[in-house]
Amino acid sequence: ATATAQAAPATTNQGATMESSSSLQAVAPALQQYADQRLMGEVWNRPGLSPRDRSVVTLAALIARNQTAEMQQHVSLALDNGVKPGEISEIITHLAFYGGWGNAVDAANITQQVFQARGISAAQLPQAGDKLLPLNEEVEAARATQVAANFGAVSPGVVQYTGEVLFRDLWLRPGLAPRDRSLVTVSALIANGQVAQITYHLNRAMDNGLTQAQASEMLTQLAFYSGWPSVFSAMPVIKEVFEKRPGNQS
Amino acid sequence: ATATAQAAPATTNQGATMESSSSLQAVAPALQQYADQRLMGEVWNRPGLSPRDRSVVTLAALIARNQTAEMQQHVSLALDNGVKPGEISEIITHLAFYGGWGNAVDAANITQQVFQARGISAAQLPQAGDKLLPLNEEVEAARATQVAANFGAVSPGVVQYTGEVLFRDLWLRPGLAPRDRSLVTVSALIANGQVAQITYHLNRAMDNGLTQAQASEMLTQLAFYSGWPSVFSAMPVIKEVFEKRPGNQS
Amino acid sequence: ATATAQAAPATTNQGATMESSSSLQAVAPALQQYADQRLMGEVWNRPGLSPRDRSVVTLAALIARNQTAEMQQHVSLALDNGVKPGEISEIITHLAFYGGWGNAVDAANITQQVFQARGISAAQLPQAGDKLLPLNEEVEAARATQVAANFGAVSPGVVQYTGEVLFRDLWLRPGLAPRDRSLVTVSALIANGQVAQITYHLNRAMDNGLTQAQASEMLTQLAFYSGWPSVFSAMPVIKEVFEKRPGNQS
Repeated sequence: ATATAQAAPATTNQGATMESSSSLQAVAPALQQYADQRLMGEVWNRPGLSPRDRSVVTLAALIARNQTAEMQQHVSLALDNGVKPGEISEIITHLAFYGGWGNAVDAANITQQVFQARGISAAQLPQAGDKLLPLNEEVEAARATQVAANFGAVSPGVVQYTGEVLFRDLWLRPGLAPRDRSLVTVSALIANGQVAQITYHLNRAMDNGLTQAQASEMLTQLAFYSGWPSVFSAMPVIKEVFEKRPGNQS
Repeated sequence: ATATAQAAPATTNQGATMESSSSLQAVAPALQQYADQRLMGEVWNRPGLSPRDRSVVTLAALIARNQTAEMQQHVSLALDNGVKPGEISEIITHLAFYGGWGNAVDAANITQQVFQARGISAAQLPQAGDKLLPLNEEVEAARATQVAANFGAVSPGVVQYTGEVLFRDLWLRPGLAPRDRSLVTVSALIANGQVAQITYHLNRAMDNGLTQAQASEMLTQLAFYSGWPSVFSAMPVIKEVFEKRPGNQS
Repeated sequence: ATATAQAAPATTNQGATMESSSSLQAVAPALQQYADQRLMGEVWNRPGLSPRDRSVVTLAALIARNQTAEMQQHVSLALDNGVKPGEISEIITHLAFYGGWGNAVDAANITQQVFQARGISAAQLPQAGDKLLPLNEEVEAARATQVAANFGAVSPGVVQYTGEVLFRDLWLRPGLAPRDRSLVTVSALIANGQVAQITYHLNRAMDNGLTQAQASEMLTQLAFYSGWPSVFSAMPVIKEVFEKRPGNQS
């Protein structure tokens, strides 16, 4: 019964059951009202980014910063919003490499509880040996050449695994679309303040199909979950990427 | 009895009961001695920043980085040092926006235990609908115009909520003085390494009444709680703010 | 029995028992395979950095970011890899100052369980009053003069404790070699994205005996445990340090 209750659907339409907790009400009633009226009642329903994508962004931000307090609720909400179990599995795997291994383990522990409560079995999840998506060899060769030129003498190991494990393996796993991997990656970079990596990955995200309007709303979502300073530190770089994209140049 | 013990006053004058733990003594006796002799026995009693303000800075740093290990003790110490329950409530609410929503939820969960043990009821806390402090419309208009010019095309949502939720609402809530909100904000920025946001908020803090001597001691306090690197990364920017303040310019 | 099981040796040679967990297998089987085949089966056995040093780097990264999910396993693995109990004690103490006090307390709590299960007593650990290593007064005087000139007016307290507590005390404690303190410090800086502090501390590390090949492999290890973005943000600065070291200049 407890497990069922924990996994009960938390929707944005049925009285803002998310982001509610007895402790917020008891300790910070003003924050509870911001949660009800602004965050769940407004931000999650804004146009420009679907509730499904907002869940992807939110999960990425929580996992990247290891904010576990509401992670179980947000895994449940993500499933309700249409993120597939296999996609959550791949988000966790992806963020082991882009947010820190230990964070992914915490996220797996929490997600396991939700999956168990909902009867989601390992058979529904992507497997280690899944056939990879095709690789654009030309693009990857250009990336590898550039990174090897920059850092081949600094850390051959990092350069090697960046190719072998990340761009020739992880990014090609079929359980999460490249556009969604990019959305997860950029969200994690912003949440963790890793501004220097945003230019490459936001361009990649937009090459992979993320629109500027979606990226813009990703920032609104992240302001609430990762905090305003992380978004304001990222916006100058994001502005520059937007302005330099083909079609935006005069 | 347990609850009473947990909430027993932890003061800086009665044998350095804070920062003590059986695990420090068992695993890192040298760290225990630094805690007793330097941190509790010396830093907390330095002039320049009151124990009350040191508690505000420390709570902000712990919440901003989600360092929960000693948070319950520090909520208790804050109350003993004169931080009002309603101010702690507002610090948590403020840091949901400046440190990350999930961090605030963890802090609320921990604080609820201290409030319960001390019999602090919701009636003693600021409410969601409290009458707001007056707004300096001219200053806010200038801020909003600047941000809209910079980032209006990057994320209209962020720009909108920065005005509506933060500067026309959160910052005007009467349960925490603007000077204290600024102290919380700057402490969180330093703790999280968000150096690019310090210039604006430290100037705002000093406009709100924080003295240079207090800001200086805030750094000493943060060195111990957020770590030396976070303070050394912030000091060049802080130095520049100090030097450019009116009255410091030759 | 439980305690014994928890402390059972987790080695890199006996079937990759580390980085395994029922939750990874249940939620993210692909990540489990990366753990088995790449991380435990390959990275930990790479030449260039000993398993002992990899454990030092990994512990530093986990403590610096408060990634507690697998910390108990990694404390055990560190002991199996030859890191002495007293060195773990000093790593925790060191990172209280370089990673944040609250992180060190969490690490002490977790380490205490491993020490208890293995029968490691406080008598085996460095004590607070241990005789300090000799100080190079000339080098320290140059450092202190520089920092005082830069930041003496910004925060006299920080400047004072940087000398008294860090460079004239903590860094001279004999329980952890200066080269290892530097390895811990640089790992923590990279894990936390504190890029501005890397130049000084990586040079210090190499002055203390860390080779360029070891620093290079430290980056490979950190990519897996702190995430790729933290390493890629650090590499430009590390490259510059390598190129400017005496003997690398043409």
